[in-house]
Amino acid sequence: MPYSAVVKRTPTGAAVLQPEVTAAITEAVLDELADTGYGKLSMEAVARRAGVGKSALYRRWPSKQEMVMAVLADFSLELATAPDTGSLRGDLVTLLRALTDWLTHPRFSRILPDLAAEGVRNPEVAEAVRAAIGEPRRRVGAAVLRRAVDRGELSADTDLEMALDLIAAPVYWRLSVRRAPAEPGYLDHLADVVLRALKGDPS
Amino acid sequence: MPYSAVVKRTPTGAAVLQPEVTAAITEAVLDELADTGYGKLSMEAVARRAGVGKSALYRRWPSKQEMVMAVLADFSLELATAPDTGSLRGDLVTLLRALTDWLTHPRFSRILPDLAAEGVRNPEVAEAVRAAIGEPRRRVGAAVLRRAVDRGELSADTDLEMALDLIAAPVYWRLSVRRAPAEPGYLDHLADVVLRALKGDPS
Repeated sequence: MPYSAVVKRTPTGAAVLQPEVTAAITEAVLDELADTGYGKLSMEAVARRAGVGKSALYRRWPSKQEMVMAVLADFSLELATAPDTGSLRGDLVTLLRALTDWLTHPRFSRILPDLAAEGVRNPEVAEAVRAAIGEPRRRVGAAVLRRAVDRGELSADTDLEMALDLIAAPVYWRLSVRRAPAEPGYLDHLADVVLRALKGDPS
Repeated sequence: MPYSAVVKRTPTGAAVLQPEVTAAITEAVLDELADTGYGKLSMEAVARRAGVGKSALYRRWPSKQEMVMAVLADFSLELATAPDTGSLRGDLVTLLRALTDWLTHPRFSRILPDLAAEGVRNPEVAEAVRAAIGEPRRRVGAAVLRRAVDRGELSADTDLEMALDLIAAPVYWRLSVRRAPAEPGYLDHLADVVLRALKGDPS
């Protein structure tokens, strides 16, 4: 796994950065973010959880903020592939299912609201979250919508910004804000509702 | 203003609880929630900001959590009135505008994401936020939708849960999560999109 921090930063000492140590630290950062949140996360706690010395952290990143940003940046790789089922409805259901898996993941379901709250106070965190998570996801959604326009399923003057909001918002609202469950059939029903909103009223 | 804490709790000492002190504390709680967040909020900081002694707080509420919950409970009074413009579109625009005002309010725009994050770790906070803010808002939205069903604007088998999500989610997603602006005309456009989704495809 190409850890961006490893790629970007040249080791300052003689020691080569060991990928398995970086991987253990990455896991520890995610666990600490889930358990205590960004605000209270400390380099000490991450090092302790990863079973390494604090110097192993500082050899990789100069600060807590850069460490968390590097860990978040790794996500963008995982989010880079758009579904292509051949129909807008099929792509939408795939997107909605992936988003649901993500928002109900035991760890990320706790990390994401915390980072959203931290972003309000700390614009650099907000920007890192946007670059690492928001923008890759929006590019994937935009690719799906553009293919639907090319196939003639959506009008060429579809408001893509609004459409992208409409795909992500209801799932986030239900699962992450209201913390209500997604009943069986919910995602299929939601896909139909979103399609109706996007395709316009033909009457 | 009827502060629920005052109504619910009988003073234990000889002193009568002074409404203007309660009001000053309420303001201080909201300011502290906005500035430092629930996790780091302390009775000391609230008392200092309100210009009162800590005993003034403890005479009213036994703990930080009960204090914050009482302050939040006051909101439900403000959220209790549903718009009634005579049309679903008019009511929707009114609801969306009120939500936008709320989510872009300098203070609440910082408090709400923090409480959402805190709710993930603290189920009692999640429940207090739901009771104080979520449920009153959903009741207002449901009243609007039921009137639209009565007028024949919406089908009687409209999925109200889904419809309520659809009204609140895009605005919350855009303003509070993405922190993107609502351009002029955005709310009217969104009202049309939501209406399309709710009214179904007549083709």
